[in-house]
Amino acid sequence: MAQYVYGKNVIQQLLQDNKKIDVLYLMDNQKDIEQNARKKGIRIEKVDRKYLDKLSKNGNHQGLVAKIEEYKTVTIDKILSDIPEEKLGFLVLLDELEDPHNLGAILRTADAVGVDGVIIKKNNAVGLTSTVAKVSVGAIETVPVAEVVNLTQTLKQLKEKGYWVVGTDMKNAQDYRQPKYDTPIVLVIGNEGKGISRLVKEECDFLVKLPMVGKISSLNASVACGILMYEVYNKRFPL
Amino acid sequence: MAQYVYGKNVIQQLLQDNKKIDVLYLMDNQKDIEQNARKKGIRIEKVDRKYLDKLSKNGNHQGLVAKIEEYKTVTIDKILSDIPEEKLGFLVLLDELEDPHNLGAILRTADAVGVDGVIIKKNNAVGLTSTVAKVSVGAIETVPVAEVVNLTQTLKQLKEKGYWVVGTDMKNAQDYRQPKYDTPIVLVIGNEGKGISRLVKEECDFLVKLPMVGKISSLNASVACGILMYEVYNKRFPL
Repeated sequence: MAQYVYGKNVIQQLLQDNKKIDVLYLMDNQKDIEQNARKKGIRIEKVDRKYLDKLSKNGNHQGLVAKIEEYKTVTIDKILSDIPEEKLGFLVLLDELEDPHNLGAILRTADAVGVDGVIIKKNNAVGLTSTVAKVSVGAIETVPVAEVVNLTQTLKQLKEKGYWVVGTDMKNAQDYRQPKYDTPIVLVIGNEGKGISRLVKEECDFLVKLPMVGKISSLNASVACGILMYEVYNKRFPL
Repeated sequence: MAQYVYGKNVIQQLLQDNKKIDVLYLMDNQKDIEQNARKKGIRIEKVDRKYLDKLSKNGNHQGLVAKIEEYKTVTIDKILSDIPEEKLGFLVLLDELEDPHNLGAILRTADAVGVDGVIIKKNNAVGLTSTVAKVSVGAIETVPVAEVVNLTQTLKQLKEKGYWVVGTDMKNAQDYRQPKYDTPIVLVIGNEGKGISRLVKEECDFLVKLPMVGKISSLNASVACGILMYEVYNKRFPL
């Protein structure tokens, strides 16, 4: 969903952080920012004060308004309360995933198997960017995503509500086809390089692994997540 | 594996086709090509004739040698003859896949489930590039890849040798968990946007689909391929 932000500091910060700006609306007195934005290839529209007043809903725009694409996140409580009573909850928690292609592909598969929500970390992880949106082919709008600061706290809260936490690991793990997945489930997927962090792993009720008979020691995160999501689906909706 | 190619025409063609050149070794008399290569950000090393003689194994280098990364492909016959007699063959055929991330991730999963070979199309499709190599985390060297000109001819030949061709489609397809996969199998994965082409689909002995309960109509190609490869593995090596 498009959103309008305004003011010199805010927009300078967006530019500095290389955030995606769809259009930068400005009056003629903003040469520095205009030049900076042009260098970054941002679309610029010169408009008058009245136009900016309208876009900013009479905010203190200082001659600058940026249109940005903002993807909505929800709270965990919202995700939980939206799950129909007769349905076994199914959440996916991503432990510091970094690659937007992986997040986009995971959202796409999550939509396909009826995952109720995806939980991501607020910092040190990929968020809902325009690349994620593109790769997700629209699933960024159909799968509820919650951003949380503390993953272990979130897992503790979910466990209190009856969720079983399923982690993925190569050691001390059972074959992913063994569990029945007949309780509410949080499936935890680790970082592309480092896997699941120690503190998050300590919250896992059990660990599963994919059998691997070749020379490579791990799968792509979105592929592994997809196989596991479909196995949960398979156990809950067998042929 | 690194490989050295040489000669003015060859290297001009590489530059024109934007092929990846790791290092361009040249003598001081190649101003045009040097300038062109610099524009493309290629690493250049000025060397003497003796050095080039050595790199090119005394070939007619005309003052130019390029180091390129070359990934080895094999023939279908080689793939088939390398399959142990007691093993049910398992091949994956990619019908004009375009995205190197997908090909890399598919090779990675193919290694994990013991796929005997991956077949790709020679033209109009992604080949074995350095991006594919990186995403495959080494599986580009462990999974035999065959490049063929005509996919339908290849499928006809494989069918004569006892292979069953399994395509993926959303219509007129059975649930992917239904087949036993207890014959030699060629799993066919379609292009990211267009799916499997008509002629290739006509060669399929049966079509399978993944159940999808959400709003999105298809999965990422490497995720779908991963789920299907693991289902073949699951049927052949059940718990």
